[in-house]
This record gives sequence, structure tokens and C-alpha cells, in this order.
Amino acid sequence: MSAAPQPDAYARAARRFSGAAKLSAVRNLLNWDARTHMPTGGAWARGEEMAALTEVIAEQVGSAAAGGELDEAEAMAGALTAGEQADLREMRRLWVHAAAVPAELLAAKARLAETLQAIWVEARVNSDFAAFAGPFAEMLAVIRQIAAAKAAALGTTDYGALIDEFDPGVGEAMIEPIFVDLARVLPGLLAEVRDRQASWPAPIPFGQATVARQARLAARLLAMVGHSAEHTRLDPTAHPFSVGGMPGDARLTTHYKPDNVRFAIMATLHEAGHSMYELNLPRAWAFRPAGHARGMTVHESQSLALEMMAGRSREFIAVLAPMMARAFGGADERWSAPNVLNAWRRMDDGCIRVEADEISYPLHVILRHRLETAMIAGDLAVPDLPAAWNELSRQLLGRTPPDLARGCLQDIHWAAGHIGYFPNYAMGSMLACQLFERATADDPDILPAIGRGDFGPYFAWMRPKVHERASLADVATIVEDATGAPLGAEAFKRHVRRRYLEDPLG
Amino acid sequence: MSAAPQPDAYARAARRFSGAAKLSAVRNLLNWDARTHMPTGGAWARGEEMAALTEVIAEQVGSAAAGGELDEAEAMAGALTAGEQADLREMRRLWVHAAAVPAELLAAKARLAETLQAIWVEARVNSDFAAFAGPFAEMLAVIRQIAAAKAAALGTTDYGALIDEFDPGVGEAMIEPIFVDLARVLPGLLAEVRDRQASWPAPIPFGQATVARQARLAARLLAMVGHSAEHTRLDPTAHPFSVGGMPGDARLTTHYKPDNVRFAIMATLHEAGHSMYELNLPRAWAFRPAGHARGMTVHESQSLALEMMAGRSREFIAVLAPMMARAFGGADERWSAPNVLNAWRRMDDGCIRVEADEISYPLHVILRHRLETAMIAGDLAVPDLPAAWNELSRQLLGRTPPDLARGCLQDIHWAAGHIGYFPNYAMGSMLACQLFERATADDPDILPAIGRGDFGPYFAWMRPKVHERASLADVATIVEDATGAPLGAEAFKRHVRRRYLEDPLG
Repeated sequence: MSAAPQPDAYARAARRFSGAAKLSAVRNLLNWDARTHMPTGGAWARGEEMAALTEVIAEQVGSAAAGGELDEAEAMAGALTAGEQADLREMRRLWVHAAAVPAELLAAKARLAETLQAIWVEARVNSDFAAFAGPFAEMLAVIRQIAAAKAAALGTTDYGALIDEFDPGVGEAMIEPIFVDLARVLPGLLAEVRDRQASWPAPIPFGQATVARQARLAARLLAMVGHSAEHTRLDPTAHPFSVGGMPGDARLTTHYKPDNVRFAIMATLHEAGHSMYELNLPRAWAFRPAGHARGMTVHESQSLALEMMAGRSREFIAVLAPMMARAFGGADERWSAPNVLNAWRRMDDGCIRVEADEISYPLHVILRHRLETAMIAGDLAVPDLPAAWNELSRQLLGRTPPDLARGCLQDIHWAAGHIGYFPNYAMGSMLACQLFERATADDPDILPAIGRGDFGPYFAWMRPKVHERASLADVATIVEDATGAPLGAEAFKRHVRRRYLEDPLG
Repeated sequence: MSAAPQPDAYARAARRFSGAAKLSAVRNLLNWDARTHMPTGGAWARGEEMAALTEVIAEQVGSAAAGGELDEAEAMAGALTAGEQADLREMRRLWVHAAAVPAELLAAKARLAETLQAIWVEARVNSDFAAFAGPFAEMLAVIRQIAAAKAAALGTTDYGALIDEFDPGVGEAMIEPIFVDLARVLPGLLAEVRDRQASWPAPIPFGQATVARQARLAARLLAMVGHSAEHTRLDPTAHPFSVGGMPGDARLTTHYKPDNVRFAIMATLHEAGHSMYELNLPRAWAFRPAGHARGMTVHESQSLALEMMAGRSREFIAVLAPMMARAFGGADERWSAPNVLNAWRRMDDGCIRVEADEISYPLHVILRHRLETAMIAGDLAVPDLPAAWNELSRQLLGRTPPDLARGCLQDIHWAAGHIGYFPNYAMGSMLACQLFERATADDPDILPAIGRGDFGPYFAWMRPKVHERASLADVATIVEDATGAPLGAEAFKRHVRRRYLEDPLG
């Protein structure tokens, strides 16, 4: 028995999903609190609170009642505006993800993620793959079940269904040709740049700087980029991150290393790119599915455009170097723009992804993407993972990891149950280059303005073309409209050649 | 049609209500965050998040489904343990409060509270009762409807139904005789103490102290009382408060006044009393209704026992005075125990409740209690409130407020829609005295130990007799079991006579 669609069906669905978005924002805040302010003894209670919230959200978003409301709303979608139709599409996508998987399977994954992350910490320290392999194989089995259930509902491959959760609209059809191209081109380019840099003079080390001084510089950078105290707070954490989904309330964190001042600067710029995107999302669509950030590739494009494209540019370094001199004291050669540029442009093409330079970074991602694709497809068994990793590392990066901590146990993602997440790091890098290339062509003052510490022209371009489109269009449309071309690797390849071969130090 | 009770009915209800308790803990955390760390620009989103959470909790606790589960569970209550039966009684009480009132009425109250508090801030500054009276009359009308609906369900008076929400088991039958007695005895006692103190030498002023120094002292006091960093955090806020309902995660706040070092010390001890109660609640009943703190009278008894009974004792001041000397520098007479005792024992019997001394404080509460009782009964109209306030103030306190900010507009409670809340402040004071008197009689080392900075014996008495009983028994039973007598004013009267007449400075 199915009732006739009611004229307010869309409104009811919208109310339901915006309620769920508010609860998701709360969950994000709880996670932020746990990493910034919670006393350690609050961990048990926090786990209970998160689980209760997750259960309520799953019920709101994935219940039969929600599905029925969406059925009704879709039956009268012709009467909706384009924005409302986009909103409805996003709701359906959220519903499919929530409804496709039995709650027990998600609970099993959450429990496994909890224990596996603790096991991973130990296994990594001890280079003990055997300790990790058993529970990770269990996790993989659960994820494969989840992937299969979602793939059936979404009409994707199993791996594609996993990507879709983080990054809708960036499927394997978009990823594969780009990754094939990069895997062919980058190893040679990397070797070329490596050779070139071998003869460079070593940069003068920056030395130590207190956390307090670094924090003041980080605050100044945030303000320069466009953050107001009214809408932003910055806290120190072990791993930098930013919180999404809370309109008008941007929380970002960074990490201060006393003996590596560059780390916090880059991390702050990176998270600042994420939070400017969140702050510029259209307020009229706040807490509405169509008003959310578009997905991880677009999100990462915003952080990388700020960190890599702007943050390593000659223009930005001209304004950053004197800020570092003021923050860390002294007018000596360390803080000269050429020395900072020299430090910023160094290849770090070791075995660790999070320390990698712009060129080798996508290769680290491709390595993981190939391995997780094979694991989800059932073509790679967990015990064979270390050998497969090392072989791919040799092929792509020209390096064999000396141990598991610098090999297949270096990232927390798989232990946390995040499979299908890695590709967006590299896709975001491609998009950052493509957007930045087009932005600076459209407005030739963007880079000179950054050289004056003014990010206004940069965001004047980015805000309407990316931020304000939120999830009102899909990734392909946003990219095509903003840059006139589909997402590809050409801008990236031009960028790294220009920066690292044509203008290496200057 | 009603299904036969299922054997797991209690378990299902318990699961539902503990889920709601977890979401309530989250709501408490959001409120804490809003007052401690949230950027001001996050206020709109936070309001939306709170509303979404409140709606979900109301549905979980007050729905027909919840009521049905409770019916089933009650039908088989004989098979439950005493603790489970107490748990079930608490669930039913929560259900009655949630189910008795239509959601629209609660939403109307929440909206009015939002605007009325802003109006109150202005009206208080401008001594403009006319601006406040209209919207407050609307609020009062809504609260009277809520009270009537709850009274019908609870079988109490309308005003009693309002008290029951904050303070179950402390009804008018318990409050009235105590308040009548206090209103008869205290004004004379107050005059007597006031006369006595007129001839005292003025204490040497403590002077200024930086927030940083005061914060270090506050942290030392928390540690001394028994808080570990593992389970506690202390933040500065405009108004001190503590967060309840988060097992193992005690968050308290204090307020530092640079020119009044006593304020933060007393506020910290007060909130520390609240948070020790929360931290000592039985972990086995965490997030269960029977595991919650018993209500506001018992909660306030814990804060006041620490702030007033221990915190103004000669023994505590002997350990506090040298801590103040160390924290604020100097070994002069200001930091001598007699000078601190002199400052701590001063009557402040002006017109402001929050600045009042131990003797006049209950009179401030009785004043409000009489007025709000009359307003709920319909015997006092809002326009007549200022005159009624001033007349009662003259009768009870011997003072007529010079303006509304020191008269009927001094508290935020009514503007926030909290009617029926004030009595617990005075009832908590009675209970604090009664518990402390019995504790120090049972264990004569409690006060000497406090004089050595050791609160161990104090909590060794309080923890099993009050904290660990949580809501597993009602207030009358807890008080009777702990002190051998029903809750009354006798211990309070003995205490203030002893402290302020027999041992005024010594």
C-alpha cells in the first residue's frame, strides 16, 4: 500500500535530513573536543556518546520512513527548483549509503576500527606485521561486505562504492586514466628533479622556535588568508585537522614541531584552505545536503591550492620570509626569501607519504590505490601486502622501505577502516593545480596580491566558482564550469615542470 | 490492542533511556563549548544543533513508544532488582515530564527564553521594568500552561510540578515548613550578627592578583579536593558552572576577578563540590537514569558543603591562607589566617543574592519562592512584581533595593524560564549543614584533615552516603540514611549561630 505523494513531501524530507546534518555537526564537534580539550578519562563516555549519536543519525537518514519520504518527494521533483532537486539527489545518496548496509555490519566495523587502531600503533612501532594481519583481514572482510552491499545499491564497483561515500562524483572512470598517466610520467620527472637538486646548496637550517612564537605566526597567517576571530579558532593537536559542517564556526588545528618551523606553517595553510571552503559555503543552504562541501577531492583541492600553489609560490614566500624573521627573531640570512624558497622547494622523496614533495606525493597515493583496489577485488590477500607494497614502492618511487613503519604500516587509514579514501589526496592535487592555473590566468593580479599578503583576489575567484556551489552541482560540472575542461593531470604536470625544472630557485 | 509484556521490556526501555542520557550529555557538552571555546560567529549554528538534539531526546524519552515500553516493564517490575526498579521509576518520571507537554509549548518556551534573556539584559541595565513586563507575562503564561499539564500527570500542584523537573522528591511539603521557620528566625539572627560585626576591624584588603596567579591557585585547590587532570578540566567563563552527566569527564569553570581574589576561590570550591559528586556517581549505572545525580538540592548540598562548610572553616583557612600567600606573593599580614578568616566571615547582607552571606542567602531564596509561587498560582500579576519584591525584601532582609538591577531584575532565572528552581539553593544549604554536621560527628578527623589539606576523610564519608546512591533512592531516604533525620533547618541554624555568634573571629 503506498499513499499518494503529499505536496510537502520534499519539505518533510528536507527537514529530516537537515536535522541529521545538525547531529552530524555535533558529532564532528565531539570528535574535535576529544582531540583538543577532553580529559583522557572522558574517553569511555565519549565513545558511548558518539555511538548513541551515530545510531540516531543512521535511523534518521537510512530508515524506511526516510526512504518513503524520498520516494514521495522524487515523484513530484518536477515542481522543485534546481537547487531543491540537487538537494533531493544528495538526500537520496545519503539514504542509499545508510540504508544499504545492515546496522550490525557498521557496528562491527566501528568496533574493529577501535581495536585495530590500537593494534596498528603497536605493530608499527615493533614492525610486527603478523600482529596486524589477522585483525586487519577481519576488517577487510567486513569492508568488502559493506562495499558489496553499497555497490549493489549504487550501481558501482565495490571499490567505487567505497569512494562514493567520501567523494561522490569522483569515480574510478575519472581516477584511473589520471593515475595511469601519472604513474607513467612522474617517476622519470622525479628522477630529473632529484638530479637537478643534487647540486643545490643546502638551505641554512631555521633552527628551533618555541610553540608560542609559532602559534603567533600561525594566527597571523590565518588572519592574512581571511579568517576572523569571530568565526575561527585554532588549537594545537598531535595531527592537524579541520572540522566541517558547522556553519560560521571554523575550527582548525595545527601541530608545532619545535625543531621544524615549516611543518606548522604548511599545516596551518593546508587546514586554512579547508576552513575557508567551509566558511564560504552558502549560508542559505546551511545544514542542507546540497549545502555541504562537495566531497573530498574538492575539499583537498582547496587545502592544497592554499598550501602548495599559493604557499610555495615565489610571491607568497616573499611575504612569508619577513613574517618568519619577525616571529622567530633575527634578520640573518636564514630568513631571506631565497633561503626560505630553497627550503620550501626541496624534494622529499623518501618513503613516507606525509613528508613527500608535490611530485612524489601522487605516486604514494597511486601505490595505496592499487593495493586497496586489489584487496577489495579479492586479488591481494593481507599476508601478501608487505611484499606487494615494497615492490610497488620500488617501481613507482624508486625506493624500498627499510621497515614497516616506513612501508605498509605508515598510515592509520586502513586501520581506521578507511578504504577508498586515498585517491582524493592525489585527485585534490590535480584539481588544485587546474583551478589555480585557471584562476591566475583569469585574474593576473592573484599572485601579485598574494605577494602583498592579500588573498582577496584569490578567494574572489574561488568563492563563487567552487565554495558557493557547495553540493548544488556535481564535481564534473563544477570543474568544467570553473576551468573549461574536465578534471585531468595536465595542469599538474605543467605546474611541477614549471616550478621544479624551469624555475627551481631563480 | 496491547501486546503481552515481553521479558526484555525493561532492557529495551533501559537501552532507550540510556541512549537519551548520552544525547543529553552531548547537549551539556555543547552548552559548555558555547560558553568556553565557541567562536561567537558559531552561535546560530549552535542554536540549530541544540534544537535538533532536543527534538531527538524529547522523542526518545516522551514518545508513545517509550510509554508503551515502560508499561510493559512496569507490568513485570516484580522480577527486577531494587536498582532496576529505581531505574524504572526514574524513566517513568522522565517520560511523564516529556510526554505531558505538547512539543509546541516547549518550543514556544524555548523561543521566548531566547528573546526574553536579551530583553532582560537591557531592562536590567536601564532599570526598565516596562520593557521586561510584557514578554515576561507571555513567558509566565506559557510556563503556567506547562505547569498545569505536568501537575495533572504528576499529581502535584502546578508549582510542585515545576520543582519536580529539577529536584524530584523535594516537594512543597518538604520546603514550606523549613522556609516558614527560616523566615521567622533568620531576620533577627541577621540583625544580631550585623550588630556584632559592626565593631570588627576591617580586614586588610587583598589587593589585585593576575588571572594567571589565580588560575594556578584554583588548579591547586582542585587537586587538593581530589580532582585528577585525567578526569577534570577547568576553564574561565563569565559565570562559573560545572557540567554534569558525562561520566569520568568533569568540566568546571570559574571566574577570575583581578580585584577580588576571594571570588574565584569560592566559586572554584563550589563547582568542585558539584564535580566531585558527578565523578563519584556509580560507574556501573553510568548513563542510566538511576545513576544520575539525585537532583538540585542534593547537588547544591555538595557544592555548598565544600564552599561554605569546609571552605569557610577555621581549619581550611589555616591551609588556604599560606596557599594565597604563595600564589599572590608576599608574607605580609594580608595573608595571615586571622585576616583571611575576617574577610571570609563578613556578612554581605545587601540586596544581591549572589553576593549574600550564609545567613541572608536563604532569605533571598524565600523571597523569590514566595513571589514565583504567587505568580504560578495566579495571585500575583507581573506589573505588581517590583512592588511585591521590594515589600518582601524590606520584611525579610530589612533592605529596600535602590533599583531594579538590585531588585527584581537581578537574576536571569525567570528570563530563562526557570521557575521552581530557586528553592533548591536554600534547601541545598540546609542539607549541606545537616550532612556536614553528621559527617564531622561520625568522623572527628574530617575537619583536622581538611586543616592538613586532606579531603580524603570528608569524601570517604560523603561518597558512599550520597554520591554512590545517585538516584537509586529518593532524597528523603538518602538524607534519613545519611543523617538519621529528615531534611530540616536545625543543623543550619546551629551552624550559623556557632560560626557567626559563638566563634566569630576567635
